[in-house]
Amino acid sequence: MAMGLRRLVGGVGMEKHGEEGQTAFEIGVVVPKRVQEQEEGEDNDCLEVLVNEFKKAGLIVDTVVGLHDEFIKLAAPLEVLGRAAVELQLKKRTHIGVDLQFEWDDIDAFIRQPDGSLFSWCERFHCYRHIINGIVNKSYSVIILRSNCKEIYWEPGEPLIRKLESEVIVKEVFPLHDEEKRKQLLRSWALNWRGFTNQPIDKVYSYFGTKIAIYFAFLGMYTKWMLFPAAFGLILQLVDFGSLQLLVLPMFFISIISWAVLFLQFWKRKNSALLARWQISSSVGADSGHKFLEMEWSSFQSPVELIKKWGTDKTKLKEVFQREEWFGRLTRIRNDAVIILSIICLQLPFELAYAHLYEVIQSDLVKFGLTAAYLFAIQYFTKIGGKISVKLVKYENNENTEYRADSLIYKVFGLYFMQSYIGLFYHALLHRNFETLRKVLIQRLIISEVLENLMENSLPYLKYSYRKYKAVRSKRKREKGSSTGRIQLIPRVEKDYLKPAYSASIGEELEDGLFDDFLELALQFGMIMMFACAFPLAFVFAALNNVTEIRADALKLLTMYRRPIPRSAATIGAWLNIFQFLIVMSICTNCALLVCLYDQEGNWNISPGLAAILIMEHVLLLIKFGFSRFVPEEPAWVRANRMKNASQAQDMCSKQLLRSISGEKFFDGSEKNE
Amino acid sequence: MAMGLRRLVGGVGMEKHGEEGQTAFEIGVVVPKRVQEQEEGEDNDCLEVLVNEFKKAGLIVDTVVGLHDEFIKLAAPLEVLGRAAVELQLKKRTHIGVDLQFEWDDIDAFIRQPDGSLFSWCERFHCYRHIINGIVNKSYSVIILRSNCKEIYWEPGEPLIRKLESEVIVKEVFPLHDEEKRKQLLRSWALNWRGFTNQPIDKVYSYFGTKIAIYFAFLGMYTKWMLFPAAFGLILQLVDFGSLQLLVLPMFFISIISWAVLFLQFWKRKNSALLARWQISSSVGADSGHKFLEMEWSSFQSPVELIKKWGTDKTKLKEVFQREEWFGRLTRIRNDAVIILSIICLQLPFELAYAHLYEVIQSDLVKFGLTAAYLFAIQYFTKIGGKISVKLVKYENNENTEYRADSLIYKVFGLYFMQSYIGLFYHALLHRNFETLRKVLIQRLIISEVLENLMENSLPYLKYSYRKYKAVRSKRKREKGSSTGRIQLIPRVEKDYLKPAYSASIGEELEDGLFDDFLELALQFGMIMMFACAFPLAFVFAALNNVTEIRADALKLLTMYRRPIPRSAATIGAWLNIFQFLIVMSICTNCALLVCLYDQEGNWNISPGLAAILIMEHVLLLIKFGFSRFVPEEPAWVRANRMKNASQAQDMCSKQLLRSISGEKFFDGSEKNE
Repeated sequence: MAMGLRRLVGGVGMEKHGEEGQTAFEIGVVVPKRVQEQEEGEDNDCLEVLVNEFKKAGLIVDTVVGLHDEFIKLAAPLEVLGRAAVELQLKKRTHIGVDLQFEWDDIDAFIRQPDGSLFSWCERFHCYRHIINGIVNKSYSVIILRSNCKEIYWEPGEPLIRKLESEVIVKEVFPLHDEEKRKQLLRSWALNWRGFTNQPIDKVYSYFGTKIAIYFAFLGMYTKWMLFPAAFGLILQLVDFGSLQLLVLPMFFISIISWAVLFLQFWKRKNSALLARWQISSSVGADSGHKFLEMEWSSFQSPVELIKKWGTDKTKLKEVFQREEWFGRLTRIRNDAVIILSIICLQLPFELAYAHLYEVIQSDLVKFGLTAAYLFAIQYFTKIGGKISVKLVKYENNENTEYRADSLIYKVFGLYFMQSYIGLFYHALLHRNFETLRKVLIQRLIISEVLENLMENSLPYLKYSYRKYKAVRSKRKREKGSSTGRIQLIPRVEKDYLKPAYSASIGEELEDGLFDDFLELALQFGMIMMFACAFPLAFVFAALNNVTEIRADALKLLTMYRRPIPRSAATIGAWLNIFQFLIVMSICTNCALLVCLYDQEGNWNISPGLAAILIMEHVLLLIKFGFSRFVPEEPAWVRANRMKNASQAQDMCSKQLLRSISGEKFFDGSEKNE
Repeated sequence: MAMGLRRLVGGVGMEKHGEEGQTAFEIGVVVPKRVQEQEEGEDNDCLEVLVNEFKKAGLIVDTVVGLHDEFIKLAAPLEVLGRAAVELQLKKRTHIGVDLQFEWDDIDAFIRQPDGSLFSWCERFHCYRHIINGIVNKSYSVIILRSNCKEIYWEPGEPLIRKLESEVIVKEVFPLHDEEKRKQLLRSWALNWRGFTNQPIDKVYSYFGTKIAIYFAFLGMYTKWMLFPAAFGLILQLVDFGSLQLLVLPMFFISIISWAVLFLQFWKRKNSALLARWQISSSVGADSGHKFLEMEWSSFQSPVELIKKWGTDKTKLKEVFQREEWFGRLTRIRNDAVIILSIICLQLPFELAYAHLYEVIQSDLVKFGLTAAYLFAIQYFTKIGGKISVKLVKYENNENTEYRADSLIYKVFGLYFMQSYIGLFYHALLHRNFETLRKVLIQRLIISEVLENLMENSLPYLKYSYRKYKAVRSKRKREKGSSTGRIQLIPRVEKDYLKPAYSASIGEELEDGLFDDFLELALQFGMIMMFACAFPLAFVFAALNNVTEIRADALKLLTMYRRPIPRSAATIGAWLNIFQFLIVMSICTNCALLVCLYDQEGNWNISPGLAAILIMEHVLLLIKFGFSRFVPEEPAWVRANRMKNASQAQDMCSKQLLRSISGEKFFDGSEKNE
């Protein structure tokens, strides 16, 4: 029996590049276990072919037989990655600070990562994917592969991995945890409770990639800044200001709004400082405000064939671009309108009905039952809403995945916003029932956040445990006939495989697991900001919660999930806008709350005409600040022209520039390769 | 007697480059008339030296003796301008769409202007200035120059023009009108009344430079867009909607706000489309939002010596940058606070007092007297305020002239804002006196705009006439003794010199005459937007006014003033923000107006607590949207680093890139030079 580890190759380049950290096995391929009675004559066994092709591509291959499946672990020496990077025309930061196309000969011109490796995890992953997808049938005839009892026809030019995936022979290709680094991070990050909000962000960046590192940097800064309003809120709760009480609340209100505005502004600064530290360009050929790395790699996919023809017929092309731009924009507006209308017409009445019933019903038992039924129902609704949003977003002609993800975030946040806050508004504004409001707030902040944290940490573990149990049981069942030996250890790679992937609860194809984490943060931010005047203590709860959240999320990422697929988003993207929106909302709601608080007797009657005008004013202010988003400042054709120019120039001088940089020997510690 | 034109040189390169439009005389130097009894032996006459030096620098020189002064007209052949551009390290747009340093050998790589010339007027002016300032004493000893009876010591290394300016021998150096192009523009632009809002913007651009062309493009688009609200306003005035009247006004309100928001958004698009057409880069190495060409030429003047040392001690440098950044920001905040406080504490009571007196006084005669006194007083106050602002701005550490101009614009607009609107608010909101409000609005819109237009067109003409008269008279007086001949024709260059320069009424050193024109537009926009609900017909007046304004301003620029010094600002800069601010203001004021209109009897009483909370809300919204400006999104050191990197890369590959572009022969109609 092929138990334990069976090393096929490797070891050759292992020690040589060991200090580069390149040759740790980083990709796992899951294939079904081979049937034991394998005939020797069958030389076209598809797994053998796959392994041989991997080896031919220069990868270091290691197969591990697990309990239920077999695993092919892949690693790549630096040269192989470099070759893939050249083929991918990867742009990398050079020592002079501009991004140039990678060339293997001018390797010295490129800046190394903080951990000394040449490629970042995100780049490595791209290269791996390129190498694996690049294994095609190069002969002119169909190759017949055999797998257990099936015959597979590998057509010429067809990528092997696609074929095997479609035949369910390759079950999955996923990134592997790097045991050593994982343990190190576990020690210095996830379990370092004494660190408070300090985190080894650079290490997180090199292990998980930009997007996750940015999330944790944001979470850390948010938590640290949260201490100020938390302290203020605590003082408000503990100290009796006597006759000044009436003045203290507005002061608190003003100071937390200023706090929030400053926080977001300083976050943007910190974000750009982080990107500068990691040598990620956030502005080359990108839009105003915040930009995405992705943009440069895959910008303008839609009219790409048009750009090639650029210059032949300029005015016509301009028209095409303009039509394309406005059509895309109108689809987006239509989709947004659909979502907003369905939220208002379907979700709003439902939420109001629940809040009303909750307010009216006396018996606690019925209340409990109602809440349970409600929770069950919204779970279901949210899922449907998410599905609809994902479908709508798919029809939108978004320029790249990050834009598409943003569009989805806005839509789904709309759902959650209504779901989370409308009940609170109902209690606060219509019934002026601050007792219920506070109760619900506490309930949400403490109970639900604790529960959520528990859930999001235990659910993946339970999933993992269940899958492990199933694997062990099926193994045992199969082996019952042949031998009754002890159950063997599960190899680490199979454990990784059994862990759930880090993906969002809605729309796995568009967003990663960070969606849920950011959503939690945004909802919390909205909760504490929008009802700040009604319940200043909320900041304390939020601060406590976030301190634990940092470590809990880190733990979750390091132990409960597979290593996430790295994403290159360089900012928090849509969430920043959502936070900004929540600040504006909180200005309005807090004013309404103050009115309710000061006017408990209801003496301040407001005539309906005045109320209508006030509402109109707020709607118009919303239009003023929201409308501008619908009309981009730069026409698509201008932008396309600019992008084309920039890339053309870069392509033209890239090589010469590289040569001159690498000739100048900007060296900073790492030794020369090759 | 040296009458008429005395051509010294020229004519050599005139015909050869005639089609380039390069050799029209574009710069005039004013020097005092030489005393008639000039001794032949005196070969170091400073004017002769000056003319010879100009010729040595490659310029084509023509001296014209006017009535009162003598004029040296300068033109430069293309080669001379090219040499200066190389020395200036001018960046020019190439055929591949990126800006590269100009090189004379690779002249074919650079895009030509729409009118076929290689350099734009702005670039030519820069080159001229460089050439003229580049005339220094290259010998090692002091050269003694003689002028009439004075001796001037020209120190080694000293620019001749500076020396002569300090000795008041060179009175002025100013750009000359190009007679042919001026006449052409006059016909196709200023006097083309049937064109409505159409203007030959490209021609305006090539004659006046970017900033003025952008102003006229904005004015044209604004006027064209204005037709929609003007039509709506007219309908509102003429048609009686009966019972729907109550609904029509809010509809009007909402539609004009949407109109204004969309207008500004589409203006931004048009602006970037114009820049793309003129091949001006608006985004290379610049900030988010709108950027300045100037930035690239002279960015980071302040810690320039620090940038050079960059890399030696990074953390220390970062600190210096941060200190510099925050210090600058705090000075600006302090200055803004000074201005705002003085506006509130000094100007507000004054304006309110006037408005109150105007409301109280019955007699029309006293009212008239009061208004006259008031107008006299504010003239004076505005001047003082402008002076103070200019002083304050000088201490600010703004990165370049365009930023400094913007900073000044904000401050001065604050003054004008208070002065123009506070009285209107007083009539409208406090006294609910819509009759007076409408009267004042009409008065301002029609009478004052017509008066202003007349003034701004006739004042420079009167100035010019007076100066001409003076020149003629002094000439006559001087000649009384010698001869009593007829008064001769004034040469065109002297006419140009006698015209006033196109400069702002406040702070000539910081802003050009566009300040007044933009201010007029912004005040008009504020007037019609902020009181839209009280007086919808205002849009009609404004539209009519703007249609005439286009031609009147064009006429003014072409005939009344000297040719303005070209500026390279690529957007309308601070004015865009002011327009945005006015939209937000108009949302609030129109709501207040609607309240007053619908509640003529004063039944809608609002309790003071509620009013306080509403005011707080608006202040906080203002903070939310204004605060973010104080904290830039990108730290200065990150930006400096980025700029340094980009320029470094460009410098390194500029030459190779150029060679390869010019090798590829991207030709489009203009013949090969050299």
